[in-house]
Amino acid sequence: MAATPTESRLLRACRREATDTTPIWLMRQAGRYMPEYRKLREHHPLLTMIKTPELACEVTLQPIEAFDLDAAIIFADILPPLEGMGLHLRFAEGEGPIIGNPIRTAEDIERLRVPPPEETLPFTLEAIRLARAHLDGRNIPLIGFSGAPFTLAAYAIEGKSSRNYAQVKGLMMGEPAAWHELMTKLSEVVGEYLLAQARAGAQALQLFDSWVGQLSPADYRAFALPYTQRALAIARQAGVPIIHFATDTSGYLEAMRETGADVISVDWRVDLDAAWQRIGEGVAIQGNLDPVALFAPWEALKQRAQTVLEQAGGRAGHIFNVGHGILPGTPTDNVKRLVDFVHEYAAPSHD
Amino acid sequence: MAATPTESRLLRACRREATDTTPIWLMRQAGRYMPEYRKLREHHPLLTMIKTPELACEVTLQPIEAFDLDAAIIFADILPPLEGMGLHLRFAEGEGPIIGNPIRTAEDIERLRVPPPEETLPFTLEAIRLARAHLDGRNIPLIGFSGAPFTLAAYAIEGKSSRNYAQVKGLMMGEPAAWHELMTKLSEVVGEYLLAQARAGAQALQLFDSWVGQLSPADYRAFALPYTQRALAIARQAGVPIIHFATDTSGYLEAMRETGADVISVDWRVDLDAAWQRIGEGVAIQGNLDPVALFAPWEALKQRAQTVLEQAGGRAGHIFNVGHGILPGTPTDNVKRLVDFVHEYAAPSHD
Repeated sequence: MAATPTESRLLRACRREATDTTPIWLMRQAGRYMPEYRKLREHHPLLTMIKTPELACEVTLQPIEAFDLDAAIIFADILPPLEGMGLHLRFAEGEGPIIGNPIRTAEDIERLRVPPPEETLPFTLEAIRLARAHLDGRNIPLIGFSGAPFTLAAYAIEGKSSRNYAQVKGLMMGEPAAWHELMTKLSEVVGEYLLAQARAGAQALQLFDSWVGQLSPADYRAFALPYTQRALAIARQAGVPIIHFATDTSGYLEAMRETGADVISVDWRVDLDAAWQRIGEGVAIQGNLDPVALFAPWEALKQRAQTVLEQAGGRAGHIFNVGHGILPGTPTDNVKRLVDFVHEYAAPSHD
Repeated sequence: MAATPTESRLLRACRREATDTTPIWLMRQAGRYMPEYRKLREHHPLLTMIKTPELACEVTLQPIEAFDLDAAIIFADILPPLEGMGLHLRFAEGEGPIIGNPIRTAEDIERLRVPPPEETLPFTLEAIRLARAHLDGRNIPLIGFSGAPFTLAAYAIEGKSSRNYAQVKGLMMGEPAAWHELMTKLSEVVGEYLLAQARAGAQALQLFDSWVGQLSPADYRAFALPYTQRALAIARQAGVPIIHFATDTSGYLEAMRETGADVISVDWRVDLDAAWQRIGEGVAIQGNLDPVALFAPWEALKQRAQTVLEQAGGRAGHIFNVGHGILPGTPTDNVKRLVDFVHEYAAPSHD
């Protein structure tokens, strides 16, 4: 190997160690906005791509070939762990994922299985092994990921994306004992899945709690945070850095620190410097460009990227990213310019 | 009159004066969750109800008859002001409002009219006069309202509700001169409409910036806040208290104060006491129950209402409300119990 993985910018930044320039990767960097992806996708349904290790590996590497990114993230989805538990998942064209048999009762929860990830998610573990084999020698670490217990619970209960999350909150507020049972199962599934991904070769792990920002701070602390902590305590046995992602949690960023993650990913609805101050200097920060800015003319995008970098102020521990996943239709020219701009901008202040 | 309107709990709280108990009203308190409303609605399309002063007045009064609320809010919608500017509005069943000719170019913006509200929105002004005549002597103030310039711009450009607000942000980021022109027109329309409502009899005004929380703090300050300030400067000539409502702005609550409003309404994604501290003691605070909690069993709802009241700590200037509008399907029993609980809970600490 030309360099050991621990020397990469991303892993150094996760540990808040100085880097030659700001590392950058982009959530959903492997996906629909890339012509290479869309071409493959013409021939394979989404779940087939996720469940065929060679295809998942190929998609994982596509953005790494196209842009000077500082990390790869395994091509997968947050929902397949629910399949192993007994839920029926499909992706409906134009509608997003649908759970055919959403959870509605305590009996539904009792029936949920907690299988080992090697049994139910071997395809992603194998895709990680394949991608690592391709990435070794290139000093680009591979990130594994999982949905967080709350977000998986929300999907399992709502059955599809929701405007008000009335079903999931209904169970949470109305049947706390059943909720506890569900979240206990989910935190074990999530924790073991993350741990298995690290053991398969993932050098960092990201937990996606995409929907948890719908909760009040008090409900977050009572009904979601303990299970995130439990999942991350299991994953932590792997000894790799853990990134925690959520959106809409600007009201209680302080609680994100209590997840135990090494890196907190913040969305664009808060100034990065204010967020870092509130969360505390003891963690690294990932973020926080508005993904819609990638559609703007370059000068407008550049100005917004610069604002993020200025707020980070060249501090060790900043990982540049979007505040939420890249959107379909994002121009690849802008992605390339952004990645290069971040690397060039940050260089002087890190010497 | 049995009492002058200025003695009401709501208006005293807007000025941060002590009240005998915490005032409460609920956003969308007049609407679909009420059987009385649904019965009327069977016979009239939504826009007809809004545009017929007698019907709008009747709907305004329905929740006042059913619950012990401390304010009425005129039954209207945030979008009709766009019609007077030249946009075509319709409400599609199950889809919400649709703009038939959304704004896409600088030429579209140039064509927009800025008519006086008396010409294009006489029905709401007349509904206010009628409702005031019914409310006088009951010491329940009437709130008028408008959508804020950003939220109206978002609807005018997107044409319907949006997931990512890519169109509105696209114009904002990509064509700042056109954006400035649009927002200048909207702030005049909004400001004059609020002023006219107060002159017609509204005793307080609320500005709904429902969608502005999609902006980064820097974009909010550059592209939305100045126009909110402009609209409120016009409305302020009426001399009645102004409430500012937004959601998803927990990352930059401090900027809400700069709107110049007397009361800042916060959503449930932040602790009320933390929000008040960040915004400053010089304003009143409205909020901040999760509207989904109204679907919960009473004990779970009560506990969450109590958390809000405990955080407010009996301070003068707290107006109890939901953090976003009441949802269709909300059980009216819970609404009644909540209103009574807030009044009973707060009483001792205010003596």
